[in-house]
Amino acid sequence: MKCKRCRKAAAAVDLPSHHSAFCPDCFFLFFRRQVSEGIRKLRLLSPDDRVLVCVSGGKDSLVLWDMLMELGYRTEGLHIDLGIEGYSDRSREKVLAYAGARGKEPIVVDLRSEGVPIPDAAKHARKEECSVCGTVKRYFFNRVAAQRGFTAVATGHNLDDEAARLLGNLLHWDRDHLSRQHPLLPEGPEGLVRKVKPLWRVSEMETAAYGFLKGIDYVTEECPMSRDATSLVYKEALSVIEEKMPGTRRNFYQGFLRQDREVIGSLGVPAGDEEAIRGEDGPEREAAHGAAAVPAAAFAGACISCGAPAYTETCSYCRLKERVIKT
Amino acid sequence: MKCKRCRKAAAAVDLPSHHSAFCPDCFFLFFRRQVSEGIRKLRLLSPDDRVLVCVSGGKDSLVLWDMLMELGYRTEGLHIDLGIEGYSDRSREKVLAYAGARGKEPIVVDLRSEGVPIPDAAKHARKEECSVCGTVKRYFFNRVAAQRGFTAVATGHNLDDEAARLLGNLLHWDRDHLSRQHPLLPEGPEGLVRKVKPLWRVSEMETAAYGFLKGIDYVTEECPMSRDATSLVYKEALSVIEEKMPGTRRNFYQGFLRQDREVIGSLGVPAGDEEAIRGEDGPEREAAHGAAAVPAAAFAGACISCGAPAYTETCSYCRLKERVIKT
Repeated sequence: MKCKRCRKAAAAVDLPSHHSAFCPDCFFLFFRRQVSEGIRKLRLLSPDDRVLVCVSGGKDSLVLWDMLMELGYRTEGLHIDLGIEGYSDRSREKVLAYAGARGKEPIVVDLRSEGVPIPDAAKHARKEECSVCGTVKRYFFNRVAAQRGFTAVATGHNLDDEAARLLGNLLHWDRDHLSRQHPLLPEGPEGLVRKVKPLWRVSEMETAAYGFLKGIDYVTEECPMSRDATSLVYKEALSVIEEKMPGTRRNFYQGFLRQDREVIGSLGVPAGDEEAIRGEDGPEREAAHGAAAVPAAAFAGACISCGAPAYTETCSYCRLKERVIKT
Repeated sequence: MKCKRCRKAAAAVDLPSHHSAFCPDCFFLFFRRQVSEGIRKLRLLSPDDRVLVCVSGGKDSLVLWDMLMELGYRTEGLHIDLGIEGYSDRSREKVLAYAGARGKEPIVVDLRSEGVPIPDAAKHARKEECSVCGTVKRYFFNRVAAQRGFTAVATGHNLDDEAARLLGNLLHWDRDHLSRQHPLLPEGPEGLVRKVKPLWRVSEMETAAYGFLKGIDYVTEECPMSRDATSLVYKEALSVIEEKMPGTRRNFYQGFLRQDREVIGSLGVPAGDEEAIRGEDGPEREAAHGAAAVPAAAFAGACISCGAPAYTETCSYCRLKERVIKT
């Protein structure tokens, strides 16, 4: 089959959801366009931004960094070493190798040195492993960005990630997570740095194809602690549908973004407990940037232990750390 | 394993979503309770009702009729012979045999005699086969009920059916179908009879187990024309999730029913074309009965050809029939 764009080279990437197929060069153009349009449409970034790119060593985050550099943004990489034996070492190596080849030196936070390696932290939390890991990572994303003067934190979540999360939130009619799910979380008044997901328009397959064709060397193994993650179940369910009805996943997520945010905020039931109210994305933010209107909520102020934004006197990271260190 | 209720007999039905397992007798009690509670909670039926039960010959509709009779409702069966070679003959036989053994004679509408057997009708419509079939069946459900003085039409849709439909409606942000999806569609001012789905709280597996254990002889084959139905894809996706997270399907659907109907009616985008505006359940109804507030919409009045409620001068059934007969 020939490339549907140039009609010369052989097609290398089949995209049933776009009714298309591209040769590598045309696919690069397509992919770049998807990402730059995703940034432009939701005003995720401006040329003045200093962007902290969170790089795990997996395909999505390395492809994100690659694209943002190619698009001309000022970026630095942040790698959180989760302290998971073997897996974390291999992930860190991939990040250092990728950055080194481009004359970059990523900022590295080692959770072992911080006293909260994820395997220990997970033992001391009442939440799913992936949820604990998310709390810790988001804490450091924001702390490093705020301390070093970055204006935006970028993560590699792709369309499949976001659609799967949306499905999970709808299946549970989870008002708090639904109302805060967006590729743009504006900066907050209390030291919260803007958070963006520039890959929200590209699928996991497209990101993998881009990384592969660009020769980006990434960790292919899944995190050994994520095998039972509920997000994988939602992804599998959406894949069942996408296979039979290509394009459904994208229409589902883009349709969600077109909804009135107030209506979305009236769906579901407010969660009862404090953990659930805080939700996946930490304290809520004031809508202070861009097109999104993510609802704001009052929180207590600065954590008395670390100074980070917190709902309670001590932030959830510090409380977790205290439990881990005590034992 | 022993029955979790009587703790004497061996468990015959395992219900992971209810963290339970029952012997046949206790399962019958459980099932009956689920159905009667489903009717009571949403005020689907009252003892004064004359209920027209739509029986296809499959497990759901025969179990529904069985339960409604057991619960003491005044019922008659309506069977629509779809005119699908072999399958329809076998379905009709099952309905006649079930009814005959209970001293009942179902009303039968033969779509061949009406000039619109489904295989022909499907050829002349721009919609999916199942969608055409639904239009025709709903037309006769309402016509027979209205002409013969029934106060309610009952169909055998179960929890899996309704959850799958809900998933499809959410994936497409389909405002019209979302706002009208409910186990109770109240009677309308223009000759629309109340429509109820008394099995909305029981799963497909529970209904099948009930039918099997009660010795109800039903058609087990799927309709040969429904093999590519999108609803089957949504069902499969939800089954993937249910298997890993039992109870998710029920919480999803029951959570939907707890939503503010106005909020649901503000979700999604209004459909553009007339077919889509009419939607799965025919003309919209005034909220004239029970707890649900299903939004009402103006429609043109009586079909000039058959007198049924219609959006346009001629109702969609008559327009379809005209196309079929012309050819």
